[in-house]
Amino acid sequence: MASIGDIGVGAAINILSAFAFFVVFALLRIQPVNDRVYFPKWYIKGLRGSPLSSGAIVGRIVNLDFRSYLKFLNWMVAALRMPEPELIDHAGLDSAVYLRIYLLGLKIFVPIACLAFTIMVCCIRLLRNTHLDIFWTHLVMAYVFTFWTCYILRKEYEIVASMRLHFLASENRRPDQYTVIVRNVPPDPDESVSELVEHFFLVNHPDHYLTHQIVYDANKLSKLVEEKKKMQNWLDFYQLKYSRNQSKRATVKTGFLGLWGDQVDAINYYSSKIEILSKEISLEADKTVSDPKSIMPAAFVSFKSRWGAAVCAQTQQSRNPTIWLTEWAPEPRDVYWDNLAIPFVSLAIRRLIAGVAFFFLTFFFMIPIAFVQSLANIESIEKTAPFLRPIIELKFIKSVIQGFLPGIALKIFLIFLPSILMLLSKFEGFISRSSLERRSASKYYIFLFVNVFLGSIITGTAFQQLNKFLHQSANDIPKTIGVSIPMKATFFITFIMVDGWAGIAAEILRLRPLIIYHLRNFFLVKTEKDREEAMDPGTLEFNTGEPRIQLYFLLGLVYAVVTPLLLPFIVTFFGLAYIVYRHQIINVYNQEYESAAAFWPDVHGRIIAALVVSQLLLMGLLSTKEAAQSTPLLIALPILTIWFNRFCKGRYEPAFVQYPLQEAMMKDTLERAREPNLNLKGFLQNAYVHPVFKHDEDDVEIETDSEDRQQEPALVPTKRQSRRNTPLQSKHSGPLSSSHSEVDGGAS
Amino acid sequence: MASIGDIGVGAAINILSAFAFFVVFALLRIQPVNDRVYFPKWYIKGLRGSPLSSGAIVGRIVNLDFRSYLKFLNWMVAALRMPEPELIDHAGLDSAVYLRIYLLGLKIFVPIACLAFTIMVCCIRLLRNTHLDIFWTHLVMAYVFTFWTCYILRKEYEIVASMRLHFLASENRRPDQYTVIVRNVPPDPDESVSELVEHFFLVNHPDHYLTHQIVYDANKLSKLVEEKKKMQNWLDFYQLKYSRNQSKRATVKTGFLGLWGDQVDAINYYSSKIEILSKEISLEADKTVSDPKSIMPAAFVSFKSRWGAAVCAQTQQSRNPTIWLTEWAPEPRDVYWDNLAIPFVSLAIRRLIAGVAFFFLTFFFMIPIAFVQSLANIESIEKTAPFLRPIIELKFIKSVIQGFLPGIALKIFLIFLPSILMLLSKFEGFISRSSLERRSASKYYIFLFVNVFLGSIITGTAFQQLNKFLHQSANDIPKTIGVSIPMKATFFITFIMVDGWAGIAAEILRLRPLIIYHLRNFFLVKTEKDREEAMDPGTLEFNTGEPRIQLYFLLGLVYAVVTPLLLPFIVTFFGLAYIVYRHQIINVYNQEYESAAAFWPDVHGRIIAALVVSQLLLMGLLSTKEAAQSTPLLIALPILTIWFNRFCKGRYEPAFVQYPLQEAMMKDTLERAREPNLNLKGFLQNAYVHPVFKHDEDDVEIETDSEDRQQEPALVPTKRQSRRNTPLQSKHSGPLSSSHSEVDGGAS
Repeated sequence: MASIGDIGVGAAINILSAFAFFVVFALLRIQPVNDRVYFPKWYIKGLRGSPLSSGAIVGRIVNLDFRSYLKFLNWMVAALRMPEPELIDHAGLDSAVYLRIYLLGLKIFVPIACLAFTIMVCCIRLLRNTHLDIFWTHLVMAYVFTFWTCYILRKEYEIVASMRLHFLASENRRPDQYTVIVRNVPPDPDESVSELVEHFFLVNHPDHYLTHQIVYDANKLSKLVEEKKKMQNWLDFYQLKYSRNQSKRATVKTGFLGLWGDQVDAINYYSSKIEILSKEISLEADKTVSDPKSIMPAAFVSFKSRWGAAVCAQTQQSRNPTIWLTEWAPEPRDVYWDNLAIPFVSLAIRRLIAGVAFFFLTFFFMIPIAFVQSLANIESIEKTAPFLRPIIELKFIKSVIQGFLPGIALKIFLIFLPSILMLLSKFEGFISRSSLERRSASKYYIFLFVNVFLGSIITGTAFQQLNKFLHQSANDIPKTIGVSIPMKATFFITFIMVDGWAGIAAEILRLRPLIIYHLRNFFLVKTEKDREEAMDPGTLEFNTGEPRIQLYFLLGLVYAVVTPLLLPFIVTFFGLAYIVYRHQIINVYNQEYESAAAFWPDVHGRIIAALVVSQLLLMGLLSTKEAAQSTPLLIALPILTIWFNRFCKGRYEPAFVQYPLQEAMMKDTLERAREPNLNLKGFLQNAYVHPVFKHDEDDVEIETDSEDRQQEPALVPTKRQSRRNTPLQSKHSGPLSSSHSEVDGGAS
Repeated sequence: MASIGDIGVGAAINILSAFAFFVVFALLRIQPVNDRVYFPKWYIKGLRGSPLSSGAIVGRIVNLDFRSYLKFLNWMVAALRMPEPELIDHAGLDSAVYLRIYLLGLKIFVPIACLAFTIMVCCIRLLRNTHLDIFWTHLVMAYVFTFWTCYILRKEYEIVASMRLHFLASENRRPDQYTVIVRNVPPDPDESVSELVEHFFLVNHPDHYLTHQIVYDANKLSKLVEEKKKMQNWLDFYQLKYSRNQSKRATVKTGFLGLWGDQVDAINYYSSKIEILSKEISLEADKTVSDPKSIMPAAFVSFKSRWGAAVCAQTQQSRNPTIWLTEWAPEPRDVYWDNLAIPFVSLAIRRLIAGVAFFFLTFFFMIPIAFVQSLANIESIEKTAPFLRPIIELKFIKSVIQGFLPGIALKIFLIFLPSILMLLSKFEGFISRSSLERRSASKYYIFLFVNVFLGSIITGTAFQQLNKFLHQSANDIPKTIGVSIPMKATFFITFIMVDGWAGIAAEILRLRPLIIYHLRNFFLVKTEKDREEAMDPGTLEFNTGEPRIQLYFLLGLVYAVVTPLLLPFIVTFFGLAYIVYRHQIINVYNQEYESAAAFWPDVHGRIIAALVVSQLLLMGLLSTKEAAQSTPLLIALPILTIWFNRFCKGRYEPAFVQYPLQEAMMKDTLERAREPNLNLKGFLQNAYVHPVFKHDEDDVEIETDSEDRQQEPALVPTKRQSRRNTPLQSKHSGPLSSSHSEVDGGAS
C-alpha cells in the first residue's frame, strides 16, 4: 500500500491539472465566438441572441472586457444559484433529478466520512491494544453506515416520488397523458388494423375511447430523408464555397466516395440529386401510407380523459394476454419507432438471446480482443503489407506500434461498448428511448462491476474469476475479495482522481463539440438557422453516466468501513461533479425526451445492491481476522437491507410505473371546469405521427425530437424555426403561427 | 443398493396391504349405516336421502344385498365415469383442476417411463463397452425428458387457463364478480369510514360505483357465538340422554371442566347458560355495529358492472400507493375476515418476521425437538414423578417408552407442522383462505424439499447440510448430492410405497371421520339436521396435499435419467391417487370455497423447480464420472427451462391474476340484454356481511361457509335447512322460499 505521502503527491498533481482545465474553460467560455458551444441550451430556448450579429468584429470574437477575466470562477456560483423549481422548468425533471444523484452521494458520504474519521482516527489509537475492539468498531460502523444510507435513500425516494407526481400533476396537457400504445393487434382477414383497433376500443371502452393513430413502418422513408439531408448539407457547403469565391465553381466525381467517375459541377449535381430524392420521398411516403403491408399491428389509442387512458394502460384487455397489449404511450419524442411491431413470442426469444449475449460479452469479451491483438502485431502487418516494412522497422515507430497496438483493440471496444449495449437493448424490443437508456445503464453497470470493480480487485479476466468462483465455497468468495479490498485502496484512489476528477474537468471543456462547431461554422454555416444546427448541445447520456456514478457509490460504501481514507476523494468527486453537471444542464445539454424521473427506481436499486455487496465483503474480510466467529452478527445487515429494498419497492415504486386514478380524475375535473369547450380530438389527432411524416416538402430538417415543450409557451417565446414541426400540430395545416392557443380553441 | 428381488418383495407386501384396505373400504361403504361417511357430498347437495329413515331396521344398518358384495371394486369404474364438465358442475373447478395434477403426473411419467426402459434396458446392453456412450445416452435422455415435460406443462397450462376463463365466463352471477375489496382506508377526522369510502369511489369511479359494505371487527362476537354453539351441543346431549332414560335427570358440576363446584341439573344449567349467552350476543352485536372503533378501515366496494370492478381491481387509486389498496374481493366464503385490517407498513414487517421464522423452522427445527427429547427420557420422568417409578421400571414398559418417546416429539411436530405453517401465513396477512392455503403449500413444499428430499439424500439435519453447503464450492453442491442420488433409489422406492401407496389406500377408508361420525351419531344426534352436522366431509386440503404430490414429481424427474426403475412406482402412485381422489371428490369432500384454479401457477412453478433441480443434480452426478468435461453440454438445459418458465409466466399467468376487460364487457353486455331490470344493488347489498351476522336468533348453526352455490338452483333443489343462511339473502328477510329468482326479480 502506498504511503499517504504518495497519495498526497498524486492528489496534488490531479488537483492542479483539474484546476488548469477549469482555468482554460473559464477563458474559453467568455469568448463570444464560443458562445454557442458553452451556452447552446439558451439558444435552443430562444433566450439568447447571437453575439456575432452585433457590435464590432473583434468584440464579437474575443472578449475584451478584462473585468470578466477576474471573475473566472464565477460560473460555479452561477450554476449553484438557480433554484430547483426553476431548474425543472428550465431543463426538465429528468435533469433535475439526475443532479440529485450527485447530491445523494454528498448526503450519504459527507456524514459518513466525518463519522468514520472521528471514530477510526481517535478511537483506534485508544484501543490499539486489542483486536477485538477494532472488530466491534467495524461492526458498529457497518450498522450505523447502513442505517444512515437507508435513511437517506428512503427520504430521497420519497422526495423524488413526490416530485414526479407533482410534475405530472402540474404539467401542461400533453398527448401522452391521454394516450395508450396497444401492441400485438391480432391479424384479421376482414378488417384493417385501423378498423380493428377502433372497433375493439369502441366495444371495450365505450365511454372513453376517442381516437387512434396507426403506426407505419417508415424505416425506408426515414433512410431516404436522411440521405436527402446529407445531400442538402453538401449542396450548402458548395454553395457557400461558391458565394465566397465566385470565380470558380467546384466539381465532384460521381463515383464511389467521390474518388472516381465523371467530373461534374457540384452545385448542379447535388441539386439534381436532391430533386430526385424529393420525388422518391413523396412516392415512398404515399406508398407507406397506402400499402397495408407497411401498417404495423400497433396503434396509439387516445381517450377522452386521463382517467380512461389510465384505466386502459393498467388493465388487461383480451383473454389472451399476448395480444392487445396496452401500456402508457411514451412521450412522442421518446418513442422508439423501430420496435413497435415485435410480436410477443419473438420478444421472449429476443430477451433470451440478448441475455446470453450479454453474459458472454461480460465474461468472455477478452477472447476476441486477444485474438485481434494477436493479429495486429508487427509481424502480421509486415506479412500482409510488405511495402510498409521499411517504415515499421524504424526503431521509434516500431516501439510506438508495439506499445500502442495491443491496447488499441481494447480501447476501441470500450469506446463502442455503450453502443453495443444499446444495440442489445434495442434488440430486446423496448419501445421508448428512455427505457432503452435505462436498460443499457443496467447492463453497463453490471459490466463495470464485473470488469472494473471485481477485475481490479482480483486480477485476471472476468472468465477466470467466474471459473475460480465456481470452484470456491460460497463462504470463500466474499472472503477472497474482502481480503484484497484494503490492498487495492490506493489503486482506487488513483482511479477516482484520474477517471473521476479529470473526467469531470474534461467534461466541462467540451473539446470535441468545440472543435466540431468551429469546423462546421467555417465550412457550412450560411444562415442563423444553419448555425443553430451546427450546435451540438449533447445530452446527459444516462446510459453511460449513471453507471459510472454508481461505481463511485460502490467504492464509497465498500471502503467506508475498511479504508475511510478513500471517502474524501469520493466526496470531492461528488461535489465537483454536482457543480459541473449543474452548469452543463443549465447552459449546455438539451434533453431529448422527458421521462419524469422514471429512472429513479434503478438508481435506488443499484445503491442498495452496492450496499449489500459492501456488507458481504466486510463479512468476508472480518471472517479472516481473529474475530471470525462473530461475523454472524453481520448477517442481519444484508437481510435487513434487502427487506428495506422490498419495502421501498412496495411503498414508492408504484409512483414510477402507474398513474393513480385519483390524480387522473382530479386533473380531468379541473380541465373540464377550466376549458369546457376543449377540442381534445384536434389536439391528439396527429400527436403520434412518425417524425418522418412531419417534415414540410421544402424543409430539410426532420429531427423534431430535440424539441422542448415543457416550458409554458407564453413564458418562453421560442425563436426556433423548427418550432413549426412540433407534434402538436396537424400535418396538413402549414403556417408558422399555429400554436397551443389555436389548437385549444376549437369545439369539443 | 437392494436387489430387484428385495424391492419386489416390498412391492408385493405393499400391494397386498393396499388391496386389503380397498377390500375393507368396499365392504364398509355399502353398509347403509356408513352412508353419511362415504357419501356426504351427495347429502350436502341434497341429492341423497337418509337410508335410516326407510326400510327394515336391519336393512337400514347392514347391507343384505349380496350381489353388491361381488362388485366390490365397482367404485373405481364409477369414479372414472363422471365426465369432466359434470365434475366441474358437481364439485367446482378447484377440485377438477386438482385432479388434473395427478393426470399431469401420468402424462409426464408414462411416456418417460416407457422411453427410459426402452433406451436404458436395450441400448445400454449393446453399448456396455464404452462409458462415453452411457454419458451420451444420459445427455440425450435429459434433453428429451426436459422437452417432453415442458411440452406437457405448456399444454396443461393452456388448458387450465382456458378452463378457468371459461369457468369465470360461464358461471352464474356472483357477488365477487362485481366487488373489489379496498384496504387501508386512511383515517379521517370528519368522516366515518363508510362515508369516506362512498365519497372516494363516487368521485373516482362516478359512472361505475354502486354500493359498499364496511367490515366490522367481529372477532369477539364470533367467540361468543362459538361458545353458545358448544353449550347447545351439551344441552342436546343431556336432553337426548334424558329422553332415552326419563327416570333420571343428569347433573353437572359448575366448576372448572366440570370437575368440582356445585352439583346442578344439567339441562337447566345449559339452558340458562344459553339464555345468558344469547343476550350477550345480541348486546355485542349491537355494540359491534354501532361502535366506530369496531369498524375496520376496509370495505367491500361493489360496482354496477363487471367492467367497473375489473378496472378498479387492476388500477392504483391514490398517489400514496399504501392507502386505498384495491384488489378483487375473494368469494364471500373465501374471505379470511381476521386479516382485513392490517396496515401496509405492518404487512412488510410481518412478511420479514414470517420469513425469518420460516427459515429457522426449516433449518433449525431439530434443536427444540432434540431438547424435548432429552427431557422426555426415562430418567427425567422418574425425577419429576417418582411415584411412577415402579411402573416405568417394568422391563416391557421401559422398552416401549425408550423406543417411543424420542420419536413422539418429532411425530407431534410433523403433525402440527401444516397448522404452524398456516399460522405463519395468517400472520403474513393474506385475506382469502385460498391464498392462505397456497402460501402454506409453498412453505410446506420447501420444508419437504429440504428435510425429506435433501435430508434423505444427505443424512444429517438441515442445519448441518446448510453449514456444509456454505463451506463447499458452488460446483460441488450438486456433485455431492448428485453422487448420492443413485444410492438412495431403493430408499425412495420404499418411501413411495409406504407413504404414497399406503397413504392413498388409507385416505379412502376415512377411519377418523368414520369413528367420529358414529360416536356423534350415538351421543348427540336427535334430528336429521343434527345428523347432517355430524357428517365431516372434509376438504381437499391443498396446503398439505399438493406439496406431497410435488415431492413425487421431484423424485420422478430426478430419477428418470439416473434410475428409471423408480418410474413405475411413481406412475402407480399417480394412477392410484387419481382414482381414489376422483372418488373422494365426487362422493366425499365438500369444497369450502372456489378460487377457480388460482393455484395452477404455483403447481406449474414447482414442477419447473423440480425440473431444474433434477438437471443440476444430473450435471453434478455426471461431472464426477469420466465424461466430466462434457457437462457444459448440460448447462443449456436449466437456462432453457428457466426461460421457458418466464415465457409461460408472461403467456398464461395473467389469466390467473387479472380479469380481461373484454371478457367483463362481454358478460356485462349479455346480462344487460337478458335481464334489463336486474336489481343488482339488492343482489349485492348483503353479500359480504360477516358470517356471524347471518345467524337467525333461534338458529344455532352459524357456519354457512359450507354452502354450495355453484349449481343451478333450479337443477338441484337443496333440502338443507342451512340454505336459508346463504349470503345471497338479506339478513332481515327470513323465509325459506327466498331464492335467486326472487332476488333477480326487482327493479334495477
